[in-house]
Amino acid sequence: MILLLGASGYMGAAFAHELKRRGRQFIPVGRKDADYTRFDSLLAYLRATKPEFVINSAGYTGKPNVDACEQARADTLQGNTLLPQTIAHACAAAGIPWGHVSSGCIFSGAKIVENGEVRIEKDLTKPEARAVVEKFPDRIKGFTETDTPNFSFRDGPCSFYSGTKALAEEAVAGIGQSYIWRLRIPFDEFDQSRNYLSKVQRYAKVYDNVNSISHRADFVRAALDLWERRVPSGVYNLTNPGFVTTRQVVALIEKVLKPERAFQFWENDGEFYRLGAKAPRSNCVMDVSKLLAAGVSMRPVWEAVEHSLKNWRPEKTST
Amino acid sequence: MILLLGASGYMGAAFAHELKRRGRQFIPVGRKDADYTRFDSLLAYLRATKPEFVINSAGYTGKPNVDACEQARADTLQGNTLLPQTIAHACAAAGIPWGHVSSGCIFSGAKIVENGEVRIEKDLTKPEARAVVEKFPDRIKGFTETDTPNFSFRDGPCSFYSGTKALAEEAVAGIGQSYIWRLRIPFDEFDQSRNYLSKVQRYAKVYDNVNSISHRADFVRAALDLWERRVPSGVYNLTNPGFVTTRQVVALIEKVLKPERAFQFWENDGEFYRLGAKAPRSNCVMDVSKLLAAGVSMRPVWEAVEHSLKNWRPEKTST
Repeated sequence: MILLLGASGYMGAAFAHELKRRGRQFIPVGRKDADYTRFDSLLAYLRATKPEFVINSAGYTGKPNVDACEQARADTLQGNTLLPQTIAHACAAAGIPWGHVSSGCIFSGAKIVENGEVRIEKDLTKPEARAVVEKFPDRIKGFTETDTPNFSFRDGPCSFYSGTKALAEEAVAGIGQSYIWRLRIPFDEFDQSRNYLSKVQRYAKVYDNVNSISHRADFVRAALDLWERRVPSGVYNLTNPGFVTTRQVVALIEKVLKPERAFQFWENDGEFYRLGAKAPRSNCVMDVSKLLAAGVSMRPVWEAVEHSLKNWRPEKTST
Repeated sequence: MILLLGASGYMGAAFAHELKRRGRQFIPVGRKDADYTRFDSLLAYLRATKPEFVINSAGYTGKPNVDACEQARADTLQGNTLLPQTIAHACAAAGIPWGHVSSGCIFSGAKIVENGEVRIEKDLTKPEARAVVEKFPDRIKGFTETDTPNFSFRDGPCSFYSGTKALAEEAVAGIGQSYIWRLRIPFDEFDQSRNYLSKVQRYAKVYDNVNSISHRADFVRAALDLWERRVPSGVYNLTNPGFVTTRQVVALIEKVLKPERAFQFWENDGEFYRLGAKAPRSNCVMDVSKLLAAGVSMRPVWEAVEHSLKNWRPEKTST
């Protein structure tokens, strides 16, 4: 039996759906069932229910967006750093492996291969970097699980949200059997406020950058596959192989969904951060070689994006 | 036997000295002996050594002062929030009571009794509040252990340091048998950079405000007395009863130590924060009724300050 913490959230719902699909027994744990934010009560609950695995999909992402985390620092730290540390400790004390939904947003940029040398470029909006992205995409490489986060409290500036996610990875790394699954910008065919493809359509102005992204169902399948294959615990990047630019995504939205609206873009980073955002945003490319080497696959990113748009389910508007 | 974590620090040294004075067996634990920042290794160490009590005097205070914590956010969170949570979890799992050096700096201001009503004044530099401090000091009341911190991430603005200390109290409260000892601005007769009476003498300009403060040896004695009396675990304010203004402290320094220098003060808060400090500073009055009701006493603050100055031991200057 598997315990699913944070089952009512955006990622938690996807885990619940996939566990059902696989016919796996699981208990969705809400805070009413057990205060899993407190070590004593979580440990007692683990000892009483004896799960074979624990999934933490709870976290604090900020509403309406990550800017809200800049002010809600206690809740952001509690939800994204103290909570995973508590779960890691309780699972270690009970001898139970567990997995944590982390984030690739602790990185900024990508690696660029030039003349056989690899350099890290934190800002992919720079014209030189953008030219490589568009003309020589195979020269763009992602961050691996052995790279040190470069969008964190230790290597700033970063958003407060990203800082707390990076610190959580440090806090749980090597504690018992901890799986750290790095998600990036979830999307799928179900239109709703947390879906990247919905966000892009709802922004008054779109921010163009370069990112690896994660199809929600592909992500939870890969996370569960890793556990079912009993691969060694540790960090795994779980994004669909490849990367997208927001302009490319918008072009596909226009082609497939044929929306009535015309899309406008922020002129540049200066305008975006002056008018559209407060906290710095992570935009980055991830490497998924470790995932693939573990025998788990995710669809290429464009296959997943195109499939989502071709099967688009608009959110029902309330009347 | 007692485990003393952070034994080499300013407060750790005082705990070590007092434990020796009392003839109590203790082990000063450095990170080389056991990585007490990691749950697994700390829990294994606790199970191997079976202490009756654990003292955490480790923390991250920032050098040369608390402003450094604004930048060193990962280390500040690691040292002041994640570490105490880890110790609380390991001690709870091993069934061992422990005590944590917290701080009164999670409060700002004092309570003022006016016409039989009590109100909280966060800024004691306001002329009206200052007039009460000087003319009717018995109308000034301190914050108790049941008051909610008002200089924290939840009730800002605050310094990053204070935010992490307040969050730690939330993280460990009620976990196993956790004692939370609130220190405020340590001082004693031993001239050195962490001693408040040394700092006041070394500042180019002195910042005048109103504070409860803690004589270092009095603090560790009270902390150990609480444990030896087996009072219920929880939060205890451990400051010398009463409060001081920096101007009063400077006047006593001039009278007792007769320094050659003349003391200058910042004109006002505006000048101090523009030129002398980055992060907002906590200045506050604490109530110690709970400590006294537990049968543990600390000297009145002026007795402790006067004794320290009359027994002043200037730091040896290196040659």
